[in-house]
Amino acid sequence: MTTQLTLIQIDNYGPWTVTPEPRREMDLQTMQSRLFADLAQFIGSRGGYVFFSRFDNMIAVTNGIGRAGHKALQESVRNRYPVTVSLGIGTAETPAAALDEATEQIQAAGSAQDEGRTEVLAGEPLSTDADATTHIAHFDVNDATGKYTDQLNEFDSFIHIERSYASLMEYMREAHGALSFFVGGDNIIAVCPELSPEAYREAIDHVEDDVGVELKVGVGRGTTAHDAGYAAKHALEDCRYEGTIVEFDHPQAATGDD
Amino acid sequence: MTTQLTLIQIDNYGPWTVTPEPRREMDLQTMQSRLFADLAQFIGSRGGYVFFSRFDNMIAVTNGIGRAGHKALQESVRNRYPVTVSLGIGTAETPAAALDEATEQIQAAGSAQDEGRTEVLAGEPLSTDADATTHIAHFDVNDATGKYTDQLNEFDSFIHIERSYASLMEYMREAHGALSFFVGGDNIIAVCPELSPEAYREAIDHVEDDVGVELKVGVGRGTTAHDAGYAAKHALEDCRYEGTIVEFDHPQAATGDD
Amino acid sequence: MTTQLTLIQIDNYGPWTVTPEPRREMDLQTMQSRLFADLAQFIGSRGGYVFFSRFDNMIAVTNGIGRAGHKALQESVRNRYPVTVSLGIGTAETPAAALDEATEQIQAAGSAQDEGRTEVLAGEPLSTDADATTHIAHFDVNDATGKYTDQLNEFDSFIHIERSYASLMEYMREAHGALSFFVGGDNIIAVCPELSPEAYREAIDHVEDDVGVELKVGVGRGTTAHDAGYAAKHALEDCRYEGTIVEFDHPQAATGDD
Amino acid sequence: MTTQLTLIQIDNYGPWTVTPEPRREMDLQTMQSRLFADLAQFIGSRGGYVFFSRFDNMIAVTNGIGRAGHKALQESVRNRYPVTVSLGIGTAETPAAALDEATEQIQAAGSAQDEGRTEVLAGEPLSTDADATTHIAHFDVNDATGKYTDQLNEFDSFIHIERSYASLMEYMREAHGALSFFVGGDNIIAVCPELSPEAYREAIDHVEDDVGVELKVGVGRGTTAHDAGYAAKHALEDCRYEGTIVEFDHPQAATGDD
Repeated sequence: MTTQLTLIQIDNYGPWTVTPEPRREMDLQTMQSRLFADLAQFIGSRGGYVFFSRFDNMIAVTNGIGRAGHKALQESVRNRYPVTVSLGIGTAETPAAALDEATEQIQAAGSAQDEGRTEVLAGEPLSTDADATTHIAHFDVNDATGKYTDQLNEFDSFIHIERSYASLMEYMREAHGALSFFVGGDNIIAVCPELSPEAYREAIDHVEDDVGVELKVGVGRGTTAHDAGYAAKHALEDCRYEGTIVEFDHPQAATGDD
Repeated sequence: MTTQLTLIQIDNYGPWTVTPEPRREMDLQTMQSRLFADLAQFIGSRGGYVFFSRFDNMIAVTNGIGRAGHKALQESVRNRYPVTVSLGIGTAETPAAALDEATEQIQAAGSAQDEGRTEVLAGEPLSTDADATTHIAHFDVNDATGKYTDQLNEFDSFIHIERSYASLMEYMREAHGALSFFVGGDNIIAVCPELSPEAYREAIDHVEDDVGVELKVGVGRGTTAHDAGYAAKHALEDCRYEGTIVEFDHPQAATGDD
Repeated sequence: MTTQLTLIQIDNYGPWTVTPEPRREMDLQTMQSRLFADLAQFIGSRGGYVFFSRFDNMIAVTNGIGRAGHKALQESVRNRYPVTVSLGIGTAETPAAALDEATEQIQAAGSAQDEGRTEVLAGEPLSTDADATTHIAHFDVNDATGKYTDQLNEFDSFIHIERSYASLMEYMREAHGALSFFVGGDNIIAVCPELSPEAYREAIDHVEDDVGVELKVGVGRGTTAHDAGYAAKHALEDCRYEGTIVEFDHPQAATGDD
Repeated sequence: MTTQLTLIQIDNYGPWTVTPEPRREMDLQTMQSRLFADLAQFIGSRGGYVFFSRFDNMIAVTNGIGRAGHKALQESVRNRYPVTVSLGIGTAETPAAALDEATEQIQAAGSAQDEGRTEVLAGEPLSTDADATTHIAHFDVNDATGKYTDQLNEFDSFIHIERSYASLMEYMREAHGALSFFVGGDNIIAVCPELSPEAYREAIDHVEDDVGVELKVGVGRGTTAHDAGYAAKHALEDCRYEGTIVEFDHPQAATGDD
């Protein structure tokens, strides 16, 4: 079971945003979010997932996308945006280890703010016949609309969601080498190694003890992030109908087959 | 000194994302981030600021944009997206109070997941001759590239940024009724009431004590969010050159003039 | 009655598309059409109209948009695209004369392929209290779906539409100094001086004689292109219901009132 | 040598644009051109080409994109736009015959304005081992900047370009079953069967005799539209350097090898 992650870093972005003078914030926001949207279409239509994380550094699950695909992405960005991107590819058993490798590839080529370092493409994609399985966990907040959105002012709702995210992201990272991303609304998607239902229950308990927010989670797996994530969404729907807090898309017994 | 905030809520979005079946996550991400980008252009080119916050609920500083402008925004979204948006407008001395009002306007019209409640436009914009001043504080992390981006794997860098954001957002909300938003990279923009340099220093100290991340801040003010935010960016550049951690765009003495 | 037109020219675009090597055509298409879309939102939300015409040169009706608005547009393009734009503003009784002036402003500053000539902003907008009326005529093909789209292969349908456009654009330009633009489907929008219903009937007859395609037209007027164009759309709907080929949004008698 | 074309038709678009009332023209323009841009990215990053033609009906060269890819495109449009698209796939020796087939597939399922007919996906893609070669001819106008853009008002420049396009599109369609598309600036891209340099010279002569505009052309071939089109761009650069009017990317002698 191996995950392929790609770190996407806008080259020398910080300095660009203030040269020759600070650029309008709303233009920067527009540019960043459209670049992310384009990556989501490019990577998403190839079965991958990309997360905006910090926008100037984005993290993608790219199983099945080879060097040629990565190169095409760089070319397309260069042709349509005022910035370029560097890409580091890493593969490992856990998402965190894969990201370590992906990040080191880019760091080895120079600083994020080195203006001579542009369009790095480093790291080796999985061979196409690698036995890759991706595990995706899709969390959301129990009754977020009823408890928060329809009750509190929007920023206070957001604070609760944000607390649950901050708590979960650190827990999953430390306990399991999993990478969790807020994706809007009350949704958090985590790229995980293989974990038991018990492990997910503990994560949810941790967040509730830590910040008082109740999560639930659907877990899926597949050869691509999309397949795994789609199964996870269905499992999360199962939670909704069953009133449970952890559901796997496939009977847990079956997981032993891999 | 009065701030006008608009809450932008996608109507009945949660149910839409799973009807008739869960929609592809990368399509949802694309749609959300492009909608945000369009709002950033519309509002930004009129001097305002909008923050993606939860994407399904976005918060905007809209001084100077009246009901006709808000209506035009709703129409344009309806004509180009598969979703519609409700807008609540609030005005008050502190950003938090303005958002209370904006949120209540929408909540009074029905639940965020009530499918009969669409395109609410509620609340009164400031009269055009109102004496409105917006205060914007632009925070970033001291030497984020050197300490984090070029050293840690990207997720671990992100954890540090996220921690500083979670800590600052709660502190500023509770201590001052200010609303702080992560805007990418290592940047946080806060919509604030008028605050002293000392108050900003305390906020920065709080975050450093709480999570060990060192911030600095530039503060600006103006009649629009853009004017204030642009002044804040210049003040933040001053921090960089001076090696200071709090700078105001204008000599503090002058602030008493308002 | 005065029209304000703006010529929007991408600076040094031809050379850019082949430097250092030819760029991927689909990236160029994407960049061009998104730039046009952004201009359509910016100008459209201020009551104007913009037409893609050649994409590297676009023509806009900009009554009511002053120098500051034009400057904001240039800045926003520069911040988000790999190209910049020059703008020439012209005002005159007929659209053709206004465009003459707008074009000369840019030509006077240098060639479209002079790499030192960037972000020209030349020409004077109308004073805000100018008595400007815009006349917009919205043409379409009678029963295009029944006669062409559902019958012929798509390219042959397109040939008929294209023929009607080529014929109309030249006729309206020569006979009236009007500027006609294909806007998709079977629709042509013309920016016109004040013309009688008889003049429109002659234009339609000319196209039918010339290329055998039957058009109809709705005509509107207003202080902005949007107001005039919207009235024209309603008038075109009247044609549809009445089975007529020329309709004005207001009784022709009223036109004398201006 | 076989070409695979796809007709992309927005479902029931005409009625949608005026229901319940006419929609703002600039919103329609934005939506259309962004939809086209998204198709250009999706199809372009898979080696294909798409042309906006009438925007509500677009024509794509899709060699190598199978049913799953077409289905993914439909899903992605449905998830992000207020409209849906039908797709008809055709394959034949000449582009015109392929488009006949593609169009008939959609027409057989109902009218373009039948509101019950949505998301048709009809026709069979080429088998992946088919021996497909695409021929692309990239025309432009000799010294368009010097003769037109820098001399005439922009609309009059456009009239010359438009005339040359109207003349070429009809000639190539009738003489060779080739489909020619204006792609902006002074550029026309034609999807062609295999043709001799003489045939291209005759086409150029025809346009010059007919409307007085001098074209030149670069011709390329490849297994995908991108490969062929990219070779054509290089050949067109050769024309520029050599001062010739027809260039093939490969020595003509070699063409006999196929």
